[in-house]
Amino acid sequence: MLPILAKILTSDNIHPFVRKAEYAVRGELAIRSEDLKIELAKGAALPFKRVVGCNIGNPQALDQKPITFFRQVASLVEYPELLKDENAEAALRLFPSDAIARAKLLLHNIGSVGAYSHSQGIPHIRENVAKFISERDGYAADPSKIFLTQGASAGVQLTLQMIVESNKSKEWGLTTEELQRSFDEASKKGVDTRALVIINPGNPTGQCLTEENMREIISFCKKNRVILLADEVYQTNIYRPEDRPFHSFKKVLKSMGPAYEGFEMISYHSISKGMIGECGRRGGYFECEGLDDSVLEQIYKISSISLCPNVQGQIMVDLMVNPPKKGDPSYEQYKKEYDDIYFSLIKRAKILEKTFNSLEGCTCNSADGAMYLFPQIRLPKKAIAAAKAAGKEPDQFYCMAMLEATGVCMVAGSGFGQVEGTAHFRSTFLPQPELFDEFCSGIKNFHASFMSKYKD
Amino acid sequence: MLPILAKILTSDNIHPFVRKAEYAVRGELAIRSEDLKIELAKGAALPFKRVVGCNIGNPQALDQKPITFFRQVASLVEYPELLKDENAEAALRLFPSDAIARAKLLLHNIGSVGAYSHSQGIPHIRENVAKFISERDGYAADPSKIFLTQGASAGVQLTLQMIVESNKSKEWGLTTEELQRSFDEASKKGVDTRALVIINPGNPTGQCLTEENMREIISFCKKNRVILLADEVYQTNIYRPEDRPFHSFKKVLKSMGPAYEGFEMISYHSISKGMIGECGRRGGYFECEGLDDSVLEQIYKISSISLCPNVQGQIMVDLMVNPPKKGDPSYEQYKKEYDDIYFSLIKRAKILEKTFNSLEGCTCNSADGAMYLFPQIRLPKKAIAAAKAAGKEPDQFYCMAMLEATGVCMVAGSGFGQVEGTAHFRSTFLPQPELFDEFCSGIKNFHASFMSKYKD
Repeated sequence: MLPILAKILTSDNIHPFVRKAEYAVRGELAIRSEDLKIELAKGAALPFKRVVGCNIGNPQALDQKPITFFRQVASLVEYPELLKDENAEAALRLFPSDAIARAKLLLHNIGSVGAYSHSQGIPHIRENVAKFISERDGYAADPSKIFLTQGASAGVQLTLQMIVESNKSKEWGLTTEELQRSFDEASKKGVDTRALVIINPGNPTGQCLTEENMREIISFCKKNRVILLADEVYQTNIYRPEDRPFHSFKKVLKSMGPAYEGFEMISYHSISKGMIGECGRRGGYFECEGLDDSVLEQIYKISSISLCPNVQGQIMVDLMVNPPKKGDPSYEQYKKEYDDIYFSLIKRAKILEKTFNSLEGCTCNSADGAMYLFPQIRLPKKAIAAAKAAGKEPDQFYCMAMLEATGVCMVAGSGFGQVEGTAHFRSTFLPQPELFDEFCSGIKNFHASFMSKYKD
Repeated sequence: MLPILAKILTSDNIHPFVRKAEYAVRGELAIRSEDLKIELAKGAALPFKRVVGCNIGNPQALDQKPITFFRQVASLVEYPELLKDENAEAALRLFPSDAIARAKLLLHNIGSVGAYSHSQGIPHIRENVAKFISERDGYAADPSKIFLTQGASAGVQLTLQMIVESNKSKEWGLTTEELQRSFDEASKKGVDTRALVIINPGNPTGQCLTEENMREIISFCKKNRVILLADEVYQTNIYRPEDRPFHSFKKVLKSMGPAYEGFEMISYHSISKGMIGECGRRGGYFECEGLDDSVLEQIYKISSISLCPNVQGQIMVDLMVNPPKKGDPSYEQYKKEYDDIYFSLIKRAKILEKTFNSLEGCTCNSADGAMYLFPQIRLPKKAIAAAKAAGKEPDQFYCMAMLEATGVCMVAGSGFGQVEGTAHFRSTFLPQPELFDEFCSGIKNFHASFMSKYKD
């Protein structure tokens, strides 16, 4: 008989998929960085004054100012008393007229932000999303095939759970040859590949696909009967718009004509990225293309078990797809705030890329898009040996040393399935503009002392 | 070879757990009621003027006014400009000083509501939750064992996925004998029962457990090595507080002394129920009691894959566990709004219970707690035959007829594992006070005509 109150549930007998799940972005480094924050707050003497989270695209945690109009509308829908006639004068001193009008329109269509909505998302907002997609792509979108979600990751989780038995994933190259080779290799091992996830613009590399490459990917999927899942959350984070503009997979697919009618694809978008960066709100949507009606019904059923996405997140989706227009009272401020963030991101990406390329043994491509750089580092043998002795991957070892020395938290490349034998790390370029020089020189100083410590 | 573009994903080859999942509360009846809403909006001539959703506890969808103080704080944290000195005068015309102070305190601890928070929830808010639990129960609570969630259902999903291989569930009675018999029966069939979920106050029956019964349940779990999952979202929906007060499982467990040290339990709470009813916001928490540290680590890891619960939901948890206190500028209004909802719920529960008991062949217990009544109906044989001919369960058939005749959407008892051969339905008592008489007479008229149509 077991001793009384020996644990029923242990990490050995929990669901194996749970145990095996890995998420490097919020792994050991992120956990250590949270601890360091607490130590700093308690007044511990550390070699840095602040912890800088470059492990995750979380702009407002690094003081990026939210878009004013969006927050004004969000504030008004929270407290509809502000919209009442008797408060009109006081409210107009605090809110522009178009924010008030938008809040009224939303509440008219939603009721209360405190009520469960339609499980698929508020119909009015799904209509606006469909309009946005149609205008972006030049091809119709159907609100009944759009699901609002609590962010793109929630959408990906929901849809992956439909498609796959286990969430195994592997990083594949993006040329058709590489895709086909990886697919065939998996097949030989008895793996039934059912879905291909593409992040475009890319994470972690910031790569932005050409239309030609996208057509090849679509035709690879068709030929091999694989569903395409297109994570397009960085669609406005485009830093070389002339050479490498963003194309949606939806648009490219539709341009391929009737032979691709019925092609199965799901595209994801989010309010967390772009110039909006409203990560904490948890909002986004996915659009289903070509899915069987019986599958759409199942997606709806599973959505309804979670009741509904949070309504403030849904409202932010509405504002994202339908921002102030030229001539609106809020347009000039909106445009200025949006552009300021956009051009500042381009500038910071360049500075950080230059910093990385100036480091001994480090090379870094420029970012076409997204929020990350993914430099490769060639570490001295002594550093690799020290990592091994510490039971860590070399890149993880390097990133942990950086965190302890500078307070900067990045993600080791081993969390992204980098090519065997190479070492990378991923960093956002989101630290505050006014602190950016300090941030870059901190990295330089750390790297120099790390390399000298482990010099071969 | 398959025809080109035959569907890759169909309802036959999706994940079987997805296919088998059922959720009656948002099933066929709820879907039909959504369609009826659209028909009404388009001006269709239907036998009723509005669709009344009694299938789900969604108070604000039926015009329950949100608690003013909570919404004032939520509005202010959305748009921190309102808290700036230059707007102080205008803001004070619209917001009370304690709402302004609370918003400032929250933002000081949170930063921006637009940033991803700690995956487990904002530390400041978890501390307030721990304080609330300690004061409620008279036993300490540890913020590091509290996880903020996007509602109780999200918490249940997260923790169930740790514990069980498949989400099979069965309704069991709540006497120790019934529990033991069901457990033994399952064991004989080779089912390894790992968790017992108790909803208290109960859903769908509104039953509120006595302390004695709770001690028996805890000792049953200990003896049979089953983890207790306590859904306590209705803890303030208590309608006979003298005879049937709410006791938390945490408090009862702790009162059982050192022999139960290390007992494994998870308790859930939510902002969606009680007098708050902020369903659309998706917020709640769960507290882990006695879980192994390695399991807590796994729960944290899985939480972090979803990044964080939405921050506005977390803020509402803070307001729920720490509402205005006596002497605060907002206290009198808060108390009045809270009490008005509370006493109105008691009144409406009584009226609806009386209505159900006045119906031919219908008997209904009174609700000790929660938001539902669960009357039993004895249907005529002709009605049962008509249901069979329509391919429906008798209670589903009855509820569908009610929906089509009155616009009132309830949930058939077959969705809740009622005793074989009986027919029940579940209804909230949330329709608006000013429409409640009309609502009850609509049910009476429908029932009389249904019973006369299918008279044996």
